[in-house]
Amino acid sequence: MQNLKDKVAVVFAASGDIAGAVARSFSQHGARVYVTARNLDAVNRLDREIEADGGKVEAAKVDALNEAEIDNFLKKVVAENGKLDVVFNGIGADYNDMGGRPPTTVATFRQFMAPIETICGSQFLTSRVAAKYMMQTKSAGTVLLLTAALSRSKLANVAGITAASAAIEGLTRVMAAEWGGDGIKVICICPGALMETKRIDGWIHAAAKEYGMPVEQLIAQYKAFDILKTSPTLKQVGETAAFLASETGIAFNSHVVDVDCGKLNIL
Amino acid sequence: MQNLKDKVAVVFAASGDIAGAVARSFSQHGARVYVTARNLDAVNRLDREIEADGGKVEAAKVDALNEAEIDNFLKKVVAENGKLDVVFNGIGADYNDMGGRPPTTVATFRQFMAPIETICGSQFLTSRVAAKYMMQTKSAGTVLLLTAALSRSKLANVAGITAASAAIEGLTRVMAAEWGGDGIKVICICPGALMETKRIDGWIHAAAKEYGMPVEQLIAQYKAFDILKTSPTLKQVGETAAFLASETGIAFNSHVVDVDCGKLNIL
Amino acid sequence: MQNLKDKVAVVFAASGDIAGAVARSFSQHGARVYVTARNLDAVNRLDREIEADGGKVEAAKVDALNEAEIDNFLKKVVAENGKLDVVFNGIGADYNDMGGRPPTTVATFRQFMAPIETICGSQFLTSRVAAKYMMQTKSAGTVLLLTAALSRSKLANVAGITAASAAIEGLTRVMAAEWGGDGIKVICICPGALMETKRIDGWIHAAAKEYGMPVEQLIAQYKAFDILKTSPTLKQVGETAAFLASETGIAFNSHVVDVDCGKLNIL
Amino acid sequence: MQNLKDKVAVVFAASGDIAGAVARSFSQHGARVYVTARNLDAVNRLDREIEADGGKVEAAKVDALNEAEIDNFLKKVVAENGKLDVVFNGIGADYNDMGGRPPTTVATFRQFMAPIETICGSQFLTSRVAAKYMMQTKSAGTVLLLTAALSRSKLANVAGITAASAAIEGLTRVMAAEWGGDGIKVICICPGALMETKRIDGWIHAAAKEYGMPVEQLIAQYKAFDILKTSPTLKQVGETAAFLASETGIAFNSHVVDVDCGKLNIL
Repeated sequence: MQNLKDKVAVVFAASGDIAGAVARSFSQHGARVYVTARNLDAVNRLDREIEADGGKVEAAKVDALNEAEIDNFLKKVVAENGKLDVVFNGIGADYNDMGGRPPTTVATFRQFMAPIETICGSQFLTSRVAAKYMMQTKSAGTVLLLTAALSRSKLANVAGITAASAAIEGLTRVMAAEWGGDGIKVICICPGALMETKRIDGWIHAAAKEYGMPVEQLIAQYKAFDILKTSPTLKQVGETAAFLASETGIAFNSHVVDVDCGKLNIL
Repeated sequence: MQNLKDKVAVVFAASGDIAGAVARSFSQHGARVYVTARNLDAVNRLDREIEADGGKVEAAKVDALNEAEIDNFLKKVVAENGKLDVVFNGIGADYNDMGGRPPTTVATFRQFMAPIETICGSQFLTSRVAAKYMMQTKSAGTVLLLTAALSRSKLANVAGITAASAAIEGLTRVMAAEWGGDGIKVICICPGALMETKRIDGWIHAAAKEYGMPVEQLIAQYKAFDILKTSPTLKQVGETAAFLASETGIAFNSHVVDVDCGKLNIL
Repeated sequence: MQNLKDKVAVVFAASGDIAGAVARSFSQHGARVYVTARNLDAVNRLDREIEADGGKVEAAKVDALNEAEIDNFLKKVVAENGKLDVVFNGIGADYNDMGGRPPTTVATFRQFMAPIETICGSQFLTSRVAAKYMMQTKSAGTVLLLTAALSRSKLANVAGITAASAAIEGLTRVMAAEWGGDGIKVICICPGALMETKRIDGWIHAAAKEYGMPVEQLIAQYKAFDILKTSPTLKQVGETAAFLASETGIAFNSHVVDVDCGKLNIL
Repeated sequence: MQNLKDKVAVVFAASGDIAGAVARSFSQHGARVYVTARNLDAVNRLDREIEADGGKVEAAKVDALNEAEIDNFLKKVVAENGKLDVVFNGIGADYNDMGGRPPTTVATFRQFMAPIETICGSQFLTSRVAAKYMMQTKSAGTVLLLTAALSRSKLANVAGITAASAAIEGLTRVMAAEWGGDGIKVICICPGALMETKRIDGWIHAAAKEYGMPVEQLIAQYKAFDILKTSPTLKQVGETAAFLASETGIAFNSHVVDVDCGKLNIL
């Protein structure tokens, strides 16, 4: 469990459940972890938890959509540590910015573009600033992005977030091709719907309300294609991220890594 | 050659080479074709060409990024014809808006987002307005989108357009799933680099200049993976679009259709 | 409808519904068509039909699993015509050879290997003998293979035919890479379940009996993911094959072409 | 490093380099490992190595193509342990059985079928017998298969092994769908060319001789698309296998997992 001993890891948008789980796993594997978000209270709670667990952790207020804030923060991290080994950005799409799950004929242009700008845009920003500092410090580190299997699904009323997910996967490949010469690994994690997260829970309740459908029925719909009758867990995503950031993870460079326990309808 | 007899087809961004070729093929297969672009002169030339060739054609000024213009124009088309059978949008990304082919660490956020907003955004707009009118008129028509194989490539310095291409493919699948109940087909055409087009020609010259590399060397790079030692032609893209819009084309619904003559490095 | 004027096309395993439809489309597009099968009566019937329709056609007894018979027949075709433009092999797997749809823990080794040897093996034989004669006569023709989307599905109790389908798709890519230098195109057609065919009809009835399930329920299962609430037709497969064998079809070289009208669960 | 504490793992075809590395990693992660092969001497050496390293290991003579031998051996393993947690089969294709790298027009039918029967056939046999015993003992274990990225490549003169690799990936999906209800995970590892292995080394020398090409040139060809200018290592494959067999590995169920460090031409 010391795959990341002496590694320096930065987690963006760490107020969310996924990034929180990733930060916990990074710490448990021995990394020094910086947890950052716009919401300082949320990452302070995470910081205290990880510290109570014996981890080396530091919380900071960083807006993962503000390039100057990202840059200033990573500059500080490399000044303190002389290197940057791992970054993960857990940013998610806001259900309200997307207008819920509107038909594509009804969504506004802004609602369609919102998840693309937010999640694909933020992954672009944090990844490239991190790469810049990894190059400067010859860190040969790992950039971990986050997508959703919607990228390869045929599901109605999710145009914006589907386009954003697909875009992130394309972006992963370009960045891997581009930074590989500097020894930087770029890998994209694609979890199936994580039923534990506040986000998915919120979506399901909002969608159930929107469609006048019992919550249980919608959950059943999400789980209908689970081969193992079980959804992936936050713990599995965290542990997978820690594995991908470890020495062995280099083997997964440039790939989109599914963490879904097997879905009948996702290749 | 009358696969599209009595069909009503609208081509957006028809000032470009690809859309021009598609419009010509639509007309040669018997469709009544509306060719539209921001640049009225360009589509007027195309209009005259198609008419001289015996086609039923009409040119109009429509900005494929302006939803109101798109809507007004399609309203007029369905008023005239009582239906809308096919739309194709040939919009391309502007090399300058993207800042040329900058390293991802150098591109500005706006340069990264530019192709996503322009090409993915425009495909979203024209497709959904078309679908609205196809539903209203029970046209059970075909929506053809355009992407590039960059979506599945690992190529440096093309983050924005790669993300945009991947996003369009994801969008295709959502729209197909969503509109299939109304009998609307949604298909995405993915041509390999079309060496005949002004766009690719311009890119190659711009990139050659940017990198201080002979044009011939860059062309050789583009063609290195051509299995048949030949690049796809505009004519092939046009004929494929006409085939996909025909009665048989329904069989390709929801798919991304490669028109590349086979590339060793593209699955 | 004269996409294949003056072309010489050979169809193997033409006693089946798919190959029959392909032969009819080839003929309707102007090709001279040779229809062959182990069962001479079946192809004689097809021959008379096509001839009655005004086509140039010839029937012959050729076992698509017997290399010597294939070779002798194609030698005769090129001797008569000086060239070979198109081959299609419609061979299917025998439900009984596969032991029906046995669980993978129950199937015998021979039942597992049967569809691989039969359908992948036959595609290997007819394709490569055809390629040899296309090279000798500098025909720069088109080799069309047939697969099933099982290759990319997660469906129980179909190990052998799934493995065979995936193998055929891999084989397509190797042959395209290998013969492209001689101008030969290699393309694989992947139809969704064709409800019209005797084969699928037979399978469904056999499986329904095996599982003690109403036939209607099994059909509904097959169709549950049809985006357009419609299955692909034999006519669509035939017309697609004719398109792929035409001058424009070169653009599809080396690809697996889905002819399924869009399935929610097939990317 | 105790991801597999108290787990019972069986490795087939363990005389090869890949299976040897996997067995070592399984042992280092705490599993009791059975190493088996037709060549008892080879697995005896591996046994002594692992034991010297402090592992719990047992060697046995089992032909991974002989179902009766596989069955008898696994019966013994579950009799001794009451369960079966992990199986891995490292079988590879024999360069000579395939006739080297013959053009597809030259390879005999038997040379084409050889790798399909050997590697796909063996994976079928060991996986299904293992699944049977996992079901009997309610082990909810993990079946790990091995493929090669040839499945998705366009490379000349490798028809048989490409078809075999693709077939194994299809087989993985069927078995995952089929056994998931019993909690059994089925995952396929797809390493890039492992330059350390005797097999790849042998192939390269044989191919270099066959083509009259310097060995270095052929190696350079293999490595030309390595994003990180480095090939995957045996250690990485072993560690990945151990990770996939661990509690977290469940998240990868039903997938083909690339272990290639990123290749420009493999998606």
